[in-house]
Amino acid sequence: MAKQLDKITPRATDFSQWYTDTVLNAKLVEYGPVKGTTIFRPYGYAIWELMQKYLDAEFKKIGVQNVYFPLLIPQSLFNKEKEHIDGFSPEIATVTRVGDKELDEPLYIRPTSEVLMANFFQNEVRSYRDLPLVYNQWVNVMRWEKTTRPFLRTSEFLWQEGHTVHNNPAEAKKLTLKILEIYAKFAREVLLLPVVTGRKTEKEKFAGAQETYTIESLMHDGQALQCGTSHYFGDNFSKVYDIKFQNKEGKLENAYSTSWGVSTRLIGAIIMTHSDDNGLVLPSAISPIQVRLIQIKDTDEVLEATTQIQKQLAGLRVDVDKSDKSFGFKISEAEIKGIPVRIEIGPRDLEMGQVTISRRDTKEKNTVALKDVQSTVKIMIADYDRALYSNALANRKLRTSTASTIEEYVQKLQDNQGFVLVPFCGRVECETEVKQKTSTNSRCIPFDVEQECAKCFNCGMKSTLKVYFARAY
Amino acid sequence: MAKQLDKITPRATDFSQWYTDTVLNAKLVEYGPVKGTTIFRPYGYAIWELMQKYLDAEFKKIGVQNVYFPLLIPQSLFNKEKEHIDGFSPEIATVTRVGDKELDEPLYIRPTSEVLMANFFQNEVRSYRDLPLVYNQWVNVMRWEKTTRPFLRTSEFLWQEGHTVHNNPAEAKKLTLKILEIYAKFAREVLLLPVVTGRKTEKEKFAGAQETYTIESLMHDGQALQCGTSHYFGDNFSKVYDIKFQNKEGKLENAYSTSWGVSTRLIGAIIMTHSDDNGLVLPSAISPIQVRLIQIKDTDEVLEATTQIQKQLAGLRVDVDKSDKSFGFKISEAEIKGIPVRIEIGPRDLEMGQVTISRRDTKEKNTVALKDVQSTVKIMIADYDRALYSNALANRKLRTSTASTIEEYVQKLQDNQGFVLVPFCGRVECETEVKQKTSTNSRCIPFDVEQECAKCFNCGMKSTLKVYFARAY
Repeated sequence: MAKQLDKITPRATDFSQWYTDTVLNAKLVEYGPVKGTTIFRPYGYAIWELMQKYLDAEFKKIGVQNVYFPLLIPQSLFNKEKEHIDGFSPEIATVTRVGDKELDEPLYIRPTSEVLMANFFQNEVRSYRDLPLVYNQWVNVMRWEKTTRPFLRTSEFLWQEGHTVHNNPAEAKKLTLKILEIYAKFAREVLLLPVVTGRKTEKEKFAGAQETYTIESLMHDGQALQCGTSHYFGDNFSKVYDIKFQNKEGKLENAYSTSWGVSTRLIGAIIMTHSDDNGLVLPSAISPIQVRLIQIKDTDEVLEATTQIQKQLAGLRVDVDKSDKSFGFKISEAEIKGIPVRIEIGPRDLEMGQVTISRRDTKEKNTVALKDVQSTVKIMIADYDRALYSNALANRKLRTSTASTIEEYVQKLQDNQGFVLVPFCGRVECETEVKQKTSTNSRCIPFDVEQECAKCFNCGMKSTLKVYFARAY
Repeated sequence: MAKQLDKITPRATDFSQWYTDTVLNAKLVEYGPVKGTTIFRPYGYAIWELMQKYLDAEFKKIGVQNVYFPLLIPQSLFNKEKEHIDGFSPEIATVTRVGDKELDEPLYIRPTSEVLMANFFQNEVRSYRDLPLVYNQWVNVMRWEKTTRPFLRTSEFLWQEGHTVHNNPAEAKKLTLKILEIYAKFAREVLLLPVVTGRKTEKEKFAGAQETYTIESLMHDGQALQCGTSHYFGDNFSKVYDIKFQNKEGKLENAYSTSWGVSTRLIGAIIMTHSDDNGLVLPSAISPIQVRLIQIKDTDEVLEATTQIQKQLAGLRVDVDKSDKSFGFKISEAEIKGIPVRIEIGPRDLEMGQVTISRRDTKEKNTVALKDVQSTVKIMIADYDRALYSNALANRKLRTSTASTIEEYVQKLQDNQGFVLVPFCGRVECETEVKQKTSTNSRCIPFDVEQECAKCFNCGMKSTLKVYFARAY
């Protein structure tokens, strides 16, 4: 578009407005005509495609099979699992009509597909030999939201949802944790998010699950964001949906199931973790363009050098800004789009056999000999990725604290702390009370923190858990 | 599953039942709980993934950008384009409620996304410099169908829909035809379907389009199947949805648009073209498993030979049947799944340094020296693919005829002819009459057939077109 780029509100002035400005200016999404829906523009969708490609390959390595289950779920089927339906009922978009004809039974647009999968597994599973079934689908789902924000909370979003069924609980639990490990590795090594891993409290776990494991990330403003969850259902769903298998002893046994998902929300997480007042800063692995070449003039030398650089950088995602926009506009646009490395190719530099290479995060500029472009870019991208991760980790550490009373906790929140580790009794009622008092909730019971005996930070009863509480998106 | 494979009804006895038996026995799909929906099992979805991978790469080569537009379309927006809505209104699933709350305005589940795209383009396009926009999305769509059949006609299906907008009609028309060329190449070289290409008659073209181009395939039973379409809209949608750009002369001009799509229906096309009474026969390029290894015994020699063959066939999709089923069951299953090549590895063969290689279509078996497996398989797959195409082409030629009167046409249909080339006046009313008389319609006005002056086969008025008519799915 020829439209001028709009000004991005500084992050320190208004984080929320900064986020919206960044998302729209980088042309990741546009609002859809139905409230709470977004249109993924090419640049936003390309990020999602890169995420999909990585995760899909990781899933396939451990034997996950992709499937596609229908969008619509009969109301009666969905309502079988009371706990599950209670978790979703206010958010469910319902089809009641086709053309002019009212349907006999309302149909729900999937908010998630546990019940359809369970219904399928019921017919599919006969013997322990049929198991495990390890399925995943990349689909759209709908959960009507009152307040929405691109990527973070939208009425329709894209995700992958894995659903598996096993003939023994140990295998199912192991898979639940294996998936969490894949998510954590993906978050840390690809998205450069220093996530905390752990399990959810009784109150926060997924409707119908025995255990929910989670990766939690801290945004630049100190608010937490749940980035992916993996649920172990035990035989909860199997009991309700009658998924039985004949075990080795010839007896009927309820099957054990899991589900797990990450969504386009991850795009929101990388924006709110790495980006700055000039726009996006994207981890190189999921940046649709890793290096942008900007030609200062159209001379033969410049064109020739461009070709040579493209050859040197084969294997990276490189593009050339061929627009008729001004040089300044091109620089701003490369920054707004969060392209890790920018190379300016101009006649004056070329006279000395060099070009200018800039790094998106630090704005550091180097003039580099043409022959060294490949090695310089390679090192620069590795440094850049390392810096993104370590800055995010530093922010998380800076914003992680402890509290032993509710007063102290509230003070820490006021001090703009992120994760606050507190001793907690684990009771649903107690957590509900904390939420009423502070509008915050637990993020996870971290794996790597020792659980010591103490008093609950809120109710003073015996605490058996150390739990991260935080404000969250 | 441990369930016994069911018997497949012979193709000659009941083509329709053969199709259903084949689809279910090969475990491509299962019926969903909502009428007219199907569940894509892993094997069926894997075929779709291979199709997607090929086409997506072809699209990207010509600059297509993937996007994602919302599932739901406000009723008022959809209803702007009268001709378009008329084409879809009886089939549209409508969301009227979220949770317990009635919506102010009903929302349609997309049957296709022209109107959402048009609405977006309206805001996006300002100058001729902003164009073209060449978008595509891989999504689910819904069109409620009275009678359904897996892949061919289902209430929900998966497809890609391309939507583009241009600043001149020539470029838009060229793209429409370029896409048709990609579709035809894909059908012929990957799916091994000898499709006929051409454009649709006035009656059969897409709602709102100026021209619809199509690839049409003939199934083994002589019925036609539309396999992909590419539409040129001229400025029809732009006028209705107000997509204007400032042209080089500084004047406002309506933009020119196209759309195009292929769907999971293509899986139905390959089944009904290539498969036989023993189950699927899959083109090697989209066969999730290209070579299946069956071990006759578990001896060390067999295991060692298996590893050696896997190494030789690296690069192909090879698996080993590790199930505890009987040898006979394993053979049947490899056939039902349409795996192009099967290799039986047994101690007796290995004593002579050989294995037995079978080809799915001809059932031809060869004993081959272990060291020659790679070259034999390579040649066998190439021969196999060539045979699939040439058999399908022979069937199409055998079932293609001409007629110059409606009586002759009806006779040809009775003789179980497929495509019947007739002189046709092109009028909607005349084609409607043909449909009423014969329950058939036109498939396309083929590109490669000379249009000669004659009398319309039905009404006797002046004919300007030679058109393929046929029974169709």
